[in-house]
Amino acid sequence: MSKIETRLEELGLQLPNCPKPVADYIPGQIFLDRLVYISGQDCRKDGILLHEGKLGADVSIQEGVLCARQSVLNCLAALKNTIGDLDRVKKIVKILGFVASAPGFDQHPAVINGGSQLLIQLFGEDGRHARAAIGTSELPFNTPVEIEMIVELKQ
Amino acid sequence: MSKIETRLEELGLQLPNCPKPVADYIPGQIFLDRLVYISGQDCRKDGILLHEGKLGADVSIQEGVLCARQSVLNCLAALKNTIGDLDRVKKIVKILGFVASAPGFDQHPAVINGGSQLLIQLFGEDGRHARAAIGTSELPFNTPVEIEMIVELKQ
Amino acid sequence: MSKIETRLEELGLQLPNCPKPVADYIPGQIFLDRLVYISGQDCRKDGILLHEGKLGADVSIQEGVLCARQSVLNCLAALKNTIGDLDRVKKIVKILGFVASAPGFDQHPAVINGGSQLLIQLFGEDGRHARAAIGTSELPFNTPVEIEMIVELKQ
Repeated sequence: MSKIETRLEELGLQLPNCPKPVADYIPGQIFLDRLVYISGQDCRKDGILLHEGKLGADVSIQEGVLCARQSVLNCLAALKNTIGDLDRVKKIVKILGFVASAPGFDQHPAVINGGSQLLIQLFGEDGRHARAAIGTSELPFNTPVEIEMIVELKQ
Repeated sequence: MSKIETRLEELGLQLPNCPKPVADYIPGQIFLDRLVYISGQDCRKDGILLHEGKLGADVSIQEGVLCARQSVLNCLAALKNTIGDLDRVKKIVKILGFVASAPGFDQHPAVINGGSQLLIQLFGEDGRHARAAIGTSELPFNTPVEIEMIVELKQ
Repeated sequence: MSKIETRLEELGLQLPNCPKPVADYIPGQIFLDRLVYISGQDCRKDGILLHEGKLGADVSIQEGVLCARQSVLNCLAALKNTIGDLDRVKKIVKILGFVASAPGFDQHPAVINGGSQLLIQLFGEDGRHARAAIGTSELPFNTPVEIEMIVELKQ
């Protein structure tokens, strides 16, 4: 088992199966041989969204944090599906996270941080990444969080 | 004529002229010699948006699908303008699509799929891409769809 | 002093200190040795947002333009913090700008242009970039504008 998956287990977490794309795209794309773009992932666990609705109305910040963590877990599942072994990761380059928000909700960084912290717990310094956290009005299937990721691979 | 433009014609479509940027940016940017970033494109055809307004209110899913297809056509026009010949494409790396949404509309993947399917029809396996489809409240000039694209070129 | 910072001074502007990330991410990430992803930056100046709220309601287009310029200044501060010297920039690859919008506001390109024009003033032809300008309902801490940036470095 890869070091990263061992650490996941130590955190009491498990790599999900790669989420089946909900339309005509692929979960992850390798380009320039050493970069991977992971498609936007929602907070699905075993096929069902952890929570539904909007931060500031239906979903608490603490629940949103767990949604962001699940979205990153799904990114990692898509990444493993794409590259075979998570130990090939050189660094997490960047994530872009969207948070479905009721009017007036502006704590998007606190929500997306649930995903950022997991990446640092798993990959250490190589998990520190650039990031943008953006609020929006509606996300696919009413997920509260969607996250996409760019990764650099070891040569 | 390039293979890709021939296929476009077989589909009964035509590459539009490169959309004139609506402000101080360029339609596409080559970087690292082999990657191209295409600026966000709306669903303009001959200078006029195919539809205006929001999915879930003013624009049906079927109309949104056509808007996404037109946005991708505009991306390809910008790409040709940038690289000269669409046959230089090695693969479509990723698209990021935004869908202007009335409250409660959450079928963004079905809308953006209009663009994804065109890319696969045109480029075959090389057209399969990573993707994020995001809802939002407002888009420039009231376009229902805006799509940006990253492409890898052959060496 | 770098050429770029000299030009900034000639424009009567000053490079801010690198904005402290508001959560567990880094201001900028170098990858493939020659690309830099800059984390999303709001319009903070000396720790306080230039304006708060939404275009089309609380913030005028002219104020929004200044917010976009400040967001780009913060991107450049993060960039200097990441690479040491702004003269290492080969080109600005792309920016992605989000504009918090009241219902019906659709002039996002005019707002984000405040950032684009500054980049061209500073970097000349190397500052011409690809771009997407997107409206949204809510942004972190009620900033009217948030901008992220990708840069290519000289070899």
